[in-house]
Amino acid sequence: MDSNVTTPLADREGQRESLIRVAIVGYGNIGKYALQAAIEAPDVEVAGIVRRQGTKDCPQELVGYKVVTEAQLDELGRVDVAILATPTRSVEEYAKRFLARGINTVDSFDIHGQIVDLRRSLDAVAKEHKAVSIISAGWDPGSDSIVRTLMESLAPKGITYTNFGPGRSMGHSVCVRSKEGVRDALSMTIPVGQGIHRRMVYVELEEGADFDKVVRDIKADPYFSSDETHVFQVDSVDALNDVGHGVNLVRKGVSGQTHNQLFEYNMKINNPALTAQVLVNVARASVRQQPGCYTMIEIPVIDMLPGNREDIIRHLV
Amino acid sequence: MDSNVTTPLADREGQRESLIRVAIVGYGNIGKYALQAAIEAPDVEVAGIVRRQGTKDCPQELVGYKVVTEAQLDELGRVDVAILATPTRSVEEYAKRFLARGINTVDSFDIHGQIVDLRRSLDAVAKEHKAVSIISAGWDPGSDSIVRTLMESLAPKGITYTNFGPGRSMGHSVCVRSKEGVRDALSMTIPVGQGIHRRMVYVELEEGADFDKVVRDIKADPYFSSDETHVFQVDSVDALNDVGHGVNLVRKGVSGQTHNQLFEYNMKINNPALTAQVLVNVARASVRQQPGCYTMIEIPVIDMLPGNREDIIRHLV
Repeated sequence: MDSNVTTPLADREGQRESLIRVAIVGYGNIGKYALQAAIEAPDVEVAGIVRRQGTKDCPQELVGYKVVTEAQLDELGRVDVAILATPTRSVEEYAKRFLARGINTVDSFDIHGQIVDLRRSLDAVAKEHKAVSIISAGWDPGSDSIVRTLMESLAPKGITYTNFGPGRSMGHSVCVRSKEGVRDALSMTIPVGQGIHRRMVYVELEEGADFDKVVRDIKADPYFSSDETHVFQVDSVDALNDVGHGVNLVRKGVSGQTHNQLFEYNMKINNPALTAQVLVNVARASVRQQPGCYTMIEIPVIDMLPGNREDIIRHLV
Repeated sequence: MDSNVTTPLADREGQRESLIRVAIVGYGNIGKYALQAAIEAPDVEVAGIVRRQGTKDCPQELVGYKVVTEAQLDELGRVDVAILATPTRSVEEYAKRFLARGINTVDSFDIHGQIVDLRRSLDAVAKEHKAVSIISAGWDPGSDSIVRTLMESLAPKGITYTNFGPGRSMGHSVCVRSKEGVRDALSMTIPVGQGIHRRMVYVELEEGADFDKVVRDIKADPYFSSDETHVFQVDSVDALNDVGHGVNLVRKGVSGQTHNQLFEYNMKINNPALTAQVLVNVARASVRQQPGCYTMIEIPVIDMLPGNREDIIRHLV
C-alpha cells in the first residue's frame, strides 16, 4: 500500500462520482438499520434498495429511494457494493449472483462453523469477476473476531472467553418457536462467565398448549440441553422485545515468557444498529481490497474508516 | 490475498529455512524481552543480537547467541527482520540503515506527533530497497491504536477516552531526573477518567538538595503543569520499581443513527513484555506485506499470528 493510497473510486472526477454507491439487498431489520448507517456515511451514496417484493407494501421511509427487484437491478445505475441484509442461509446464493455481475458484496453470515467454506466458495467467484467479498462482518463474527485475534497475538499462550449478553439469541428464539404449542418465543442469553451462558426463555403459548410439555421439549433440545435453562410463560413476547445486546471478551495469558497479562473488551450495544454499521464499514473497505473473499481479521482496520489516511493515522495511532 | 496465502519464506524448502530470522538491535529492557518473545515464537529464529559494544560486558543469557556490532552484521547470515529495540529518537537512523540493506524493520517509536513524518520518511527508503517497515508497534501507539480505530469505526460519532495506568511514565520520569538536586525519579501515571491523569512523583535527592525547590521545579514543568501532581521524597526509587502498566479505552457513540453504543477495552500488563511481544508479532507480519512503511492499523490482525490462515479463521472469527 502507498502512503498516498486512494480508493479506485477516488481517481474519478467529481465529488458525486467519488462516492461509494451501495445497494441494500433485503429490507428487514438489518436492512433498515443499514440504510440509516449508509445515509450517515459521508463517502457512501445509496443507489437503491433491492426487495423480493419490489415496491409492493413499501415502507414509508423508502419514499425518495429507488426500490427494485433483483431482476430490475440495472435501474439503480452503477452499484459498487451490495450490502446483503438477507437471512444468513441465503447469503451464499445472493453473493454469487452479485459477484458474477462484478459487484462487491458484504454480509454478516454468522454460522461460525461454515465460514471457511463460504470464504473458499466466494473467493473463487470474486476473483473470476474481479470483485471483492467481505463475509461474516457483524459484531460476532466480525468486530469481536478482530479483538479476539488481537488479544491472542498479544498473549499467544492463554485462554480467551467470549461471554455474550444479556441479549436476545435469534437462533435459540427460532428453535423455541418451532416447538409444538408455541406461538411466539424469546430466548435471552445471560453470561455467567468463562463462556458459559444461562438461557432465559419466554414463551407465548397457543390455546390449549401444555406448558410442562413445552418446557420439557425446550430443555431436551440440543440448543438448550447443555445450558442452564429457565422457561417462563408470558402473555406477550412482543412486549419484552429489546434489541440491546452485549459482549465481554476476556483473555489472560503470556506475552513472551511473562505471565498474567490481562485483557478485556466490553460492549453494550443496539444489536442491529451495530451490525449495520459494520456492514457499511466493510462496504467501504471492500473497494480498497484486491479481488477475493475476506473475513474482517484479514482487512486493515484503517480501511473501515472514511477520510484521508494520514489524517486517520495522526488522529488514532 | 489468497485463501492459501503463505509468507514468501514459506515457499522455501525445509523447516529451518522457513523460519523468520530476526536480529534484535539494542539489548536494553525491550531488547531483553524481545529475545524472550522471539524464543517463544514457533516461526521465528534469532539470527543474533546487535549491540553497540558488541560482546563487551555481554549478559550471561546471551551465551549461545551471536552477538555483533552493526559493522559485523554479515556474520549473522540471513536476516529477514531487524527488531529495533533502540531509544525512540534513534529509530529513524537505524531503520534507514537496515532498510537500505533490504532488511525489514520494526520499532515501537512512541512520539505520537511525529509518526506520520517517520512513516513518510521510511516509506520511501523501504520501497527503494523492496523492504517493509512497521513503525510505532508497541501497545500505545500500537495495539491500542487498532482498538481505537475499530471503536471509531463501530460508532463514527462520539468521544474516545484513553486512560493510562496505573504505571510508570518513562517520559515524565526522565523529565524529573533532569531537575537540579534529583538523583533518581519515578513518575507514576494514575488514570482519573476522561483521559485526565494524576501524576505521583517519587524522588531520590542528592545530598543537600532543597526538596521544596524540587517540587516547585517539577510542578512548573510543562510535562506536569496541567496535571494534578504530587511529589514524594523517598530513600530509594529503585525499591519502587515495577513495570506493570495498564490502559482503559472507552468510547460512547452513535452507530448509524442509534445513540448510546458503549465500548470499553482494558489491559493490565507487564509493559516491556507486551511491547516486545508486539514487536515480534509485527516482525512476522512484515514478511507478509508489500514494500513500504506501515503503522499497525494498516496491517490485517491475522498477519500478526503464526500458523495456517484457514485454521486461524476457523478458530478466531
